[in-house]
Formats: sequence, structure tokens, C-alpha cells
Amino acid sequence: MTIAGLADRLGMSKASVSYALNGQPGVSEPTRARVLALAAELGWYASSSARALSQSRSDAVGIVLGRSPEEVGSESFYMNVLAGIESELSDHDMNLMLRMVTPERTPGPRRDLAVYRRWAGERRVDGVIVFDHISDDPRPQVLAGLRLPHVLVGAAEDAGSAPFGANTTVNQGRDAATVVEALHRLGHRHIAHISGPLALTHEAARSAGVLAHAGRLGMTVVFSASDYTADDGGKATIAVVAGVAPGSPEFPTAIVYGNDLMAIGGLQSLKRLGFSVPGQVSILSWDDSILCKLSSPTVAALARNTMELGRCSAALLLDTLAGHQSANVAMPAGVLKSRESLAEAAWKRP
Amino acid sequence: MTIAGLADRLGMSKASVSYALNGQPGVSEPTRARVLALAAELGWYASSSARALSQSRSDAVGIVLGRSPEEVGSESFYMNVLAGIESELSDHDMNLMLRMVTPERTPGPRRDLAVYRRWAGERRVDGVIVFDHISDDPRPQVLAGLRLPHVLVGAAEDAGSAPFGANTTVNQGRDAATVVEALHRLGHRHIAHISGPLALTHEAARSAGVLAHAGRLGMTVVFSASDYTADDGGKATIAVVAGVAPGSPEFPTAIVYGNDLMAIGGLQSLKRLGFSVPGQVSILSWDDSILCKLSSPTVAALARNTMELGRCSAALLLDTLAGHQSANVAMPAGVLKSRESLAEAAWKRP
Repeated sequence: MTIAGLADRLGMSKASVSYALNGQPGVSEPTRARVLALAAELGWYASSSARALSQSRSDAVGIVLGRSPEEVGSESFYMNVLAGIESELSDHDMNLMLRMVTPERTPGPRRDLAVYRRWAGERRVDGVIVFDHISDDPRPQVLAGLRLPHVLVGAAEDAGSAPFGANTTVNQGRDAATVVEALHRLGHRHIAHISGPLALTHEAARSAGVLAHAGRLGMTVVFSASDYTADDGGKATIAVVAGVAPGSPEFPTAIVYGNDLMAIGGLQSLKRLGFSVPGQVSILSWDDSILCKLSSPTVAALARNTMELGRCSAALLLDTLAGHQSANVAMPAGVLKSRESLAEAAWKRP
Repeated sequence: MTIAGLADRLGMSKASVSYALNGQPGVSEPTRARVLALAAELGWYASSSARALSQSRSDAVGIVLGRSPEEVGSESFYMNVLAGIESELSDHDMNLMLRMVTPERTPGPRRDLAVYRRWAGERRVDGVIVFDHISDDPRPQVLAGLRLPHVLVGAAEDAGSAPFGANTTVNQGRDAATVVEALHRLGHRHIAHISGPLALTHEAARSAGVLAHAGRLGMTVVFSASDYTADDGGKATIAVVAGVAPGSPEFPTAIVYGNDLMAIGGLQSLKRLGFSVPGQVSILSWDDSILCKLSSPTVAALARNTMELGRCSAALLLDTLAGHQSANVAMPAGVLKSRESLAEAAWKRP
């Protein structure tokens, strides 16, 4: 049975039947109901499978997140970037195919690559958006091999791209300068930087940037890499301040955290240890969120428009899918939001 | 070119070629690379479109959220339920198709229904999971008309289900008793309930439950419906306490909020107005989250396992898709987490 057949049976035009079946305006609701009732009765579908075979388009964009569902649920970064992606896709009537693969505890083939291979082989998605770029990341080459258009979210400015790939880029060095210079202006000379995992290229670039700008300004930095959770951020904080006498040159008067959860976990640990924030230690989160705004004290943050990062990444992928030549898109600089947790250094080096 | 053709060209077994193409174990990585390289060279795809036509399965579950991406990004409820759904789907190698449709500002055909019609017509998804059940909800009937299996997340215990539908259910009356009885034990006799929109059946059921149990215990309640945002929760809080003398019988000694964001917004407004929490007003959130745990004071909450709600909803849908008779699944009772924001009533009615 074709659309023409349905139209014949119903005594309607093919256009009306098509509008009714595809959920488009142009037919009244009673008419739509009649068409859908007959279509259902006949088990008739304008199958996307048949359409995809002829059009070679699935009208879906895929994302594989290599994180546990728990992590994704509590990380405002992911939710905001996903929300931005979704807003752009919805505007273009595209679907989002989402998959979370828990990171492997044991060595073996990467599960995310297996999902890409299946999606490409089965033509599930027209392209994919890739999070959490790591050094020697195998994904761009695999996706190029699969001829699957892809966009890396927030890659380094000098990161290359594979065939069929493009990047939205963030200049972490520039953002590091913003953070370090703000702390320097407040008199901080010895600071701590508790980053996320350094295998992530953006974390490595941030650490290098903090080191370079601190060195330039005559500041010293103690580094610690954590795992983005509030718990671990708290533990890393204790390790950084434990056994160092407040007031001594080795005591960091400011701590920069790689995300909001670690900053809040650190804040709690500092309070528990009896430190005053910002009286003795200033803290700053490298990503803003509602947690930073609502905690007490409120937590200063380098605010990046993460929803816009998602929107731009989706727009770049759609551009690529439309056959346009796609150059990398640079995201705007982060903006420092000074809040209660950020103050002048409590003591200054002679 | 078929799999047999590829196998011939490569001098391999059909099984090896199939494993390599489908990302399954059973072939070495170099072999997989050889197969994929030739397949890519020939533009060969084991198209899901062709498979779906023969198998009538899309291996995807759809969700249409009638919220703005911003709201979804900040609401821990959605993220946790989605995370639970994703964990169950991943275990069964199913994909999640996600769509956010901004709620209509002007009357007109509901955009979420249009998405369902397209998904069903194009066989994009095998079934859908439905959030935010409202009174006179048109969705179950539309989905039944489309013969699209569906599960309502957290429906009322007495909510019916349409053909092809089943519900995970939450007994809001029982949870209301937990909340109201806890406040009664602490000496609260006049309380405020700032709920989410009452068009949502779970909010209407909660309000009815609070009213019934408060009445039974001789307590009085002032109601206000808000919109789940921190801002509006703050405004509703001001409206509830403004112009009422603390210590008078009309002053609510405890405020129950419909979600964590409103509770935190309310807490900030109370602090700004100079009220002590819990010294003068206790507050409690009807949903737990990291915000409640990390705010200062920490906020008491009726904790429900929202990730498990998502997991069960997905499992119920997969059961339905597997052809099993699916009865509604009742979720466990919420558990009151008493935290710093909850204390004895500051003053008691004579």
C-alpha cells in the first residue's frame, strides 16, 4: 500500500495523507486521526528504513559518552553541553542518539569504538559528536575510517582533525592566563591546581597554561590530578594543605579546581579542617554551575558558556553534513565570575 | 556486494567478516582493520535500514521531553532518571533517541505528538518512555493509536494505561504521609507547601496527600504552585512569609518544596529576608540531590531513588517489547533524609 493507495481509500489528496502521516500542519486533527487510524489498521508505515535506503540519511546525530550514567547525571558540564546540542538539533528536526558506555576496568577493545562501528555499519547516525578528547585519541582515525563525519567538542586550538572531522576549540592557555592573573592581582603567590585527569587534553593544556603564566608572574604552583568527583576533590584538597603551616610560604593561599564538584568537595573539606574560605584560602572553579552560585560561600568560577559550546558543536556538524567545507570554530574566552570564595591573599610572601 | 562477496575478496570466512563489520569480538584488530578498509573502499554498509525492514526492530527507545534544554540541564531529576534509563538500555545494547521540544507559548498542535507520529511512521523507535504525566494527558491515546509501546514514568498508582502502555507508579499519598508526619512529630502545626505546576498529576497527588494527612493530624497548610526554578521558588517563599509576623499562628514554621531548585531558591530568599533556617523556618525538598547535600545549611529531603525509577521504567518497556505481559511496577517509598534545615518548630500553637 502506497500513500496514493491510502489517499484513494480515504478519498483524500496524496498531499493531505502525507501531511497527516508525517505530523506536519496542513490537515485538521480529525482528518489526521482518520488517516492514522486507517494506516494503523493496515499496518502501514512510511518506514524510515525504506526512506533511509533511498536517501542515505538517518537524520540522527550520535553521541557516545565514556562515562558512567551516575557521573553524567551529576556533571553539569555534560548536561549543559548536551542541552546546547539538543537545542540546535531540534531546530533542524534532527534526532539525538545517545549511548553511555561505562569505562573499561580491564584492558580490551574500547566499547565506544564498537558502538561507532555498529552505528556506521547500520547507518544509524549521519555523524557523531565526540567528548573528552585524550592524547593519542584513537577515535578521529576510527571515525575517518568509517567515513563518519564528526566534531570534537572543545579540542585544543592546535589539535588537528581527521578526514570527515572538525573541531570546536577552546584556548585553554588564554583562560589559564585569566585565572592566574586574577589570583596574582589579589596577591596570591603560591597556589594549588587540582585538575581533572591529565589524560584529557584540555586538562593537560590547562595545567601547562597555569604553569607557564604562574612562572611568568613569579608565582609557584602545586599540582594534583583528581577525578572530577566531590569526594576525590575533597581528598586532593586535604593532601594539598595537610602538614603545611598556614602562613608559611608553602601554604597555598588559593586553590583552583578543574570543575564545580571538586571545588564544592574541596570547600567542604576545608571547612571541616577548620579553614576559613576565603579568609585563609580562596577557591575558584574552572567551570561555573548552579552549585557554585548556590553554595555558601558562593564559589568564584571561570564561566564558559557550555551550552553555547554544545550548540556550536552541533551547528558545525550539521554544516559538515550539509556538505559545506567546515573549518574549526573557536569558542569565546571564559569570563571570571568573582564571588565570595575569592579574596586577597591572607598573607603575602616577603 | 554481500558479506559473502566481501569474504571472498578477503579470503576470509563470512563469520569473520560479519564479526569485524559489527564490532563484535572474535577477530583480531588487524583483521578487523582489513575488513573495514575494504568495506569503506567499496562503500559497503550492512545497512540498519535494510535490517530494520526485515526485522521490524529499530533497537532504539525514544524520549521526548517537553521542557527547554536549559531546564533539563539544571534539573537533577531528569538527569538521574535519564541516567537510569541509559544504564538499562546500554545493558541490552539498545540506543536512546532523545528529543527536547520547547513547550508551546501559543496554542496549537502539540509538538511532542508530532515527533511521536514521525518516529512511529518512520519506525525510528521500538517504544517510548513518557515523562511529566498531566491530567487528561493526550499522549497515551495517541501512542496507542500509533501502536507504539510506551511506559509512563512515575504515574499515580490508580492511573490507567492505554493499549501498548504500562506505568511505573509512585504512591504520592504514602510519601506525603512521611513528610507531614515527620513535620508533625517536630511540633509543626502550620506549614507551607510550594509545589511544582499542579497540571502535573504527581504534583496534584502530592498536594492532595499533604492536605489529607495534615487535616488528619490537625495541621493547616498554605499552598503555592511554582515552576521548579530557583528564582520562582524564592518568589513563592517571599509571598508565603511576607506580612506574617513570625511567632503568629499564621506564620509557617516549615516549608515543603516540590524540588531541590525551589528549596535552594527559597533558602536564599529566607536568608536574605533575615530569617534563620531552621531557627525560625524548617525547609524540606521533595527530591534529593547534590544541591541539598552541599548547600549550607544542608537541606532535608524526601529521597527517592530516581535513577532506579529510570532503570525500572526502561526495564518495563524492554519487557513489553519482548512480548511479555506488562503489569504496572510500583516504586518503593521515599525515605526522609533529615538534615540541618529540619528542626523542631520554633514556636508551637497553644
